[in-house]
Amino acid sequence: MDMRIYDIIRKKRDNHELSKLEIDFFVEKYSKGEIPDYQASALLMAIYLNKMNKQETVYLTEAMMNSGEVIDLSAIEGIKVDKHSTGGVGDKTTIALAPLVAACGAPVAKMSGRGLGHTGGTLDKLEAIPGFSIEMEAEKFIDSVNEHKIAVCGQTASIAVADKKMYALRDVTATVDNISLIAASIMCKKLASGANAILLDVKTGDGAFMKTLDDSFELAKAMVDIGNGMNRETIGMITDMDEPLGFAVGNSLEVIEAIETLKGNGPTDFVNLCETLGAYMLVLAKVASTYEEGVQKIKEAITSGSALDKLRVFIENQGGDKSIVDDYSLLPKASKIVPIKAEKSGYISKIEAEEVGVSAMILGAGRETKEDVLDLAAGIVLEKKVGDYVECGDILAYMHLNNENKFESARERFVKAYTIVDEKVEPKKLIYGVVTKDEVKKF
Amino acid sequence: MDMRIYDIIRKKRDNHELSKLEIDFFVEKYSKGEIPDYQASALLMAIYLNKMNKQETVYLTEAMMNSGEVIDLSAIEGIKVDKHSTGGVGDKTTIALAPLVAACGAPVAKMSGRGLGHTGGTLDKLEAIPGFSIEMEAEKFIDSVNEHKIAVCGQTASIAVADKKMYALRDVTATVDNISLIAASIMCKKLASGANAILLDVKTGDGAFMKTLDDSFELAKAMVDIGNGMNRETIGMITDMDEPLGFAVGNSLEVIEAIETLKGNGPTDFVNLCETLGAYMLVLAKVASTYEEGVQKIKEAITSGSALDKLRVFIENQGGDKSIVDDYSLLPKASKIVPIKAEKSGYISKIEAEEVGVSAMILGAGRETKEDVLDLAAGIVLEKKVGDYVECGDILAYMHLNNENKFESARERFVKAYTIVDEKVEPKKLIYGVVTKDEVKKF
Repeated sequence: MDMRIYDIIRKKRDNHELSKLEIDFFVEKYSKGEIPDYQASALLMAIYLNKMNKQETVYLTEAMMNSGEVIDLSAIEGIKVDKHSTGGVGDKTTIALAPLVAACGAPVAKMSGRGLGHTGGTLDKLEAIPGFSIEMEAEKFIDSVNEHKIAVCGQTASIAVADKKMYALRDVTATVDNISLIAASIMCKKLASGANAILLDVKTGDGAFMKTLDDSFELAKAMVDIGNGMNRETIGMITDMDEPLGFAVGNSLEVIEAIETLKGNGPTDFVNLCETLGAYMLVLAKVASTYEEGVQKIKEAITSGSALDKLRVFIENQGGDKSIVDDYSLLPKASKIVPIKAEKSGYISKIEAEEVGVSAMILGAGRETKEDVLDLAAGIVLEKKVGDYVECGDILAYMHLNNENKFESARERFVKAYTIVDEKVEPKKLIYGVVTKDEVKKF
Repeated sequence: MDMRIYDIIRKKRDNHELSKLEIDFFVEKYSKGEIPDYQASALLMAIYLNKMNKQETVYLTEAMMNSGEVIDLSAIEGIKVDKHSTGGVGDKTTIALAPLVAACGAPVAKMSGRGLGHTGGTLDKLEAIPGFSIEMEAEKFIDSVNEHKIAVCGQTASIAVADKKMYALRDVTATVDNISLIAASIMCKKLASGANAILLDVKTGDGAFMKTLDDSFELAKAMVDIGNGMNRETIGMITDMDEPLGFAVGNSLEVIEAIETLKGNGPTDFVNLCETLGAYMLVLAKVASTYEEGVQKIKEAITSGSALDKLRVFIENQGGDKSIVDDYSLLPKASKIVPIKAEKSGYISKIEAEEVGVSAMILGAGRETKEDVLDLAAGIVLEKKVGDYVECGDILAYMHLNNENKFESARERFVKAYTIVDEKVEPKKLIYGVVTKDEVKKF
């Protein structure tokens, strides 16, 4: 049989369902350069406008997964649960969650990425720890998880090769924000990373990729369907990113906040998020039999200090200086800490997370382009969050910086991110819902 | 203002109307190679699926027209009316119609194309006349029309440059059959050819580009809107191409049938078509004040012999041998003429025009690829048309051929094109409707 990309484009253009063979053909030939960009972009636009159904999306993800290396983690004992966040401002979850879950006995074999734009990446945050390395041979990675239940390394470039090429094309042809294409792009990399089960943290709101609750549920559902469609138990949480998570934004600052959380001094929203995500991870790993038991175990890992111990082991195993856990002065430190004051009195009704993220990026905490070098010490520590009352002149936050040139533009942007009103405001909800194979629960 | 193709793609993807500036930007930059194919094809797919409205289609056509040379025919006296057919099987209309209209006093300054696939081109047919040349300097072309009221030349490659590039891209990205894109592609070339008024013959049915009546009316309406939107009076006819036009299919054979028509011996359907199209052309050229007067003048040009005389002048002026008009043996002649017989008795209910066209192409009358060399003598002469009764063994048609190798596959295909049934069948309707600026009339 002679398959032709022309016929595949026409089929999707005419709103018909593509077969597994057709999707495999497209992904394989395109990633090998045997289908030109101009045919791929016509197909992507047809997919964007006519959409893909659940089955097509699973086939697409599988084909993209198979376009590169597929990691085999079967040498690691236990059920490997991966957690993926769609990215947000102040999202230091992995740094606290990985030791928490590992301390409870679930193996954490995590491959992470770097940050771009207003959201940070776990690898960048971990590298704020002196000596910490995310480079690791496969064998050491597997041994580490078997021995310590925890290891985090960088994602290899040989994973999901088609995704990189397709994403670059989508980026210049206005075909990025289609649920199936986004879901396939995220999931093909997760699935290629070898986990047995996946917990998705889909951020929703101003600072997230998905700005509306409906879109966030739709994306979570699509990814949960893909995971389960490929026989990996997958659960999706929809969590708030309308304001930054916790108080700290910036690499070194977020590491400190994660450690404080393991010491029992974490910000309420962040602690709650860790308990919820952690509990689901323990359930997926079959270390807890119910969600409630999972929450209990996570709480105990904090109060007993076992998670903090696990963090020390984790840091030491990857070459880092574990004494930072008890002495934050060993972490990169900004030369200047400047208070930012409220310009009026009232209740904080909104803190635009994206604007806070961009302000931190301007200070040096994030990359505007892939080539930018990070200032690991730079960032922002909020003093007030949505629902808090402030008097004019009260300190809203502290900016940590080394480069004063960018301060004024970061400050201006940051102050504008706050909305202060006269009426009392309820604090933001943290968790909006859970999507499992069988149901979509909205809280 | 900084315009970006990305934003234009996104706008059309989101089903918004593109502005004249945006359409001009796309066509100009794309034809200059400053927009890559992969962005153009994404935009074309978005246009295909979300469509363009009347105003956008006019802007697109104008931009495509301006992407190449725009011919100035103002040195020719009178109102220049161009006729364009969307192409069909056995469509020798220009060869009879041009002398008919010119004999009535309307200037005919026509640029024609070559054939590809199952439909023939006027230039190929004219070149069956020994010595006839379609190469002509602009000055001679204009002088010829002023002196003789008639000249036909090949379309220059410098016309509507964007159209060639866009068509080639559409052809490989499944974005050909969208009404706006088809209409703009046809009309930009017609408008660049400099006529003051345009008569469109939109073929409908099995052998036509537009297979259904609805699509044909829609295309005619879109083209009429474009022409009038650019201030050229434009009328569209919808005419039958469910069976071949007339009896002859093939270059030399069609020239003979056109000449016979000017001698008063034409096939009923073809004569009717020439009268109708001719009458509208005379009205558009303001040589007749009503359609009825136009029909009368065309009929007289046949009975008086003035159209035949005009044909002789036309052939001679372009270097051809005018004695072919009275001696068909001077035209290319096939070495073999083979009768094709009916395989059952009954009424002919269908002759698939496309299949007849392909059979003739196989015999050598048409090109499968641009590089193919035509056999100008090859073709088919039908003896029976839809509605006729045949006995098993009666002759359905004669095949004219020089190359016997292809005969069997051509014959097999041809015989299958006929459907013969027991019940009496009405002959096909020839003209389905007329579309003008103000109304769509269906007959």
